Amino acid sequence: MARKAFPLSKVYGLLEPGPVVMVTTARDGRRNIMTMSWHTMMEFEPPLVGCVISDRNYSFGLLKATNECVINIPTVEIAEKVVGCGNTSGSNIDKFETFGFTAKRAAEVRPPLIEECFANLECRVVDTTMVAKYCLFVVEVVKAWIDPAVKKPRTIHHLGTGNFMVAGEKIKLKSKMK
Amino acid sequence: MARKAFPLSKVYGLLEPGPVVMVTTARDGRRNIMTMSWHTMMEFEPPLVGCVISDRNYSFGLLKATNECVINIPTVEIAEKVVGCGNTSGSNIDKFETFGFTAKRAAEVRPPLIEECFANLECRVVDTTMVAKYCLFVVEVVKAWIDPAVKKPRTIHHLGTGNFMVAGEKIKLKSKMK
Repeated sequence: MARKAFPLSKVYGLLEPGPVVMVTTARDGRRNIMTMSWHTMMEFEPPLVGCVISDRNYSFGLLKATNECVINIPTVEIAEKVVGCGNTSGSNIDKFETFGFTAKRAAEVRPPLIEECFANLECRVVDTTMVAKYCLFVVEVVKAWIDPAVKKPRTIHHLGTGNFMVAGEKIKLKSKMK
Repeated sequence: MARKAFPLSKVYGLLEPGPVVMVTTARDGRRNIMTMSWHTMMEFEPPLVGCVISDRNYSFGLLKATNECVINIPTVEIAEKVVGCGNTSGSNIDKFETFGFTAKRAAEVRPPLIEECFANLECRVVDTTMVAKYCLFVVEVVKAWIDPAVKKPRTIHHLGTGNFMVAGEKIKLKSKMK
């Protein structure tokens, strides 16, 4: 895939619609993938994202220790693998191997990009104030990548207990909003 | 509309997919509607939601003073009005009148429900620790309503600058996830 750098000022448009994402982390030769739906934009630029990562997840410890992650945005074509990553724990398997994902070196952080995702956001943790109480990490996107060949990414959006909505048609309305 | 109480334990399934929502607030006979995309679930039950509401918005002051709001979830049928609420400020208009929305009394809080939305979440602010730095309010959903006639709500999801994705098909995958 010919991955292209994506302007940080436009990152909010990737996360605002609420796609299920896969968060990659790495430490001491271990790497992991976590499926996540609980995230929100918090600032446009530099892009800040609030991510709720439960302390019951293997990724929690990796993120807390390294302060780095990549937010990878998948589409419906790989939905089963995305759910597979949500059903398993990185404490006893390498999810890249188990699910056949390709790890690609990131530019600014140590965790790898997932090649099979159409967008990848390299992130650094910038605020841990709310981690103890809510497992909420505030991360800054420091580098963003996109596959320019994917014009209408059919992202998936969790509705609970394995039900997902797939991104449908696009509409354009007159808006003064960013 | 025959509005039905909705279990608090299932509220996460309404907000996880990332719909554009309309937040209603009220104080001293003034009421307002704010269009919002920056929100995330933070806890299943009681349902906690993180909401980023900029201090440049009229709603910020109302929410800060009263600690109550309703999160109303619209569908594509009223998309133009939703964007209209985003393009205007409640400091000089009553958006219910301007856009022809029907205000309905809530059960637990003072701000009104928007009748034209298929789901309404009555909320109380429970944590303001991150308001000064990030305009992030943590709210608890204390009462939830849904229109049971709406089986496949075509929610709208902001992609930036007036572009929206409309909720498409549903798929079901084998998931251990809540």
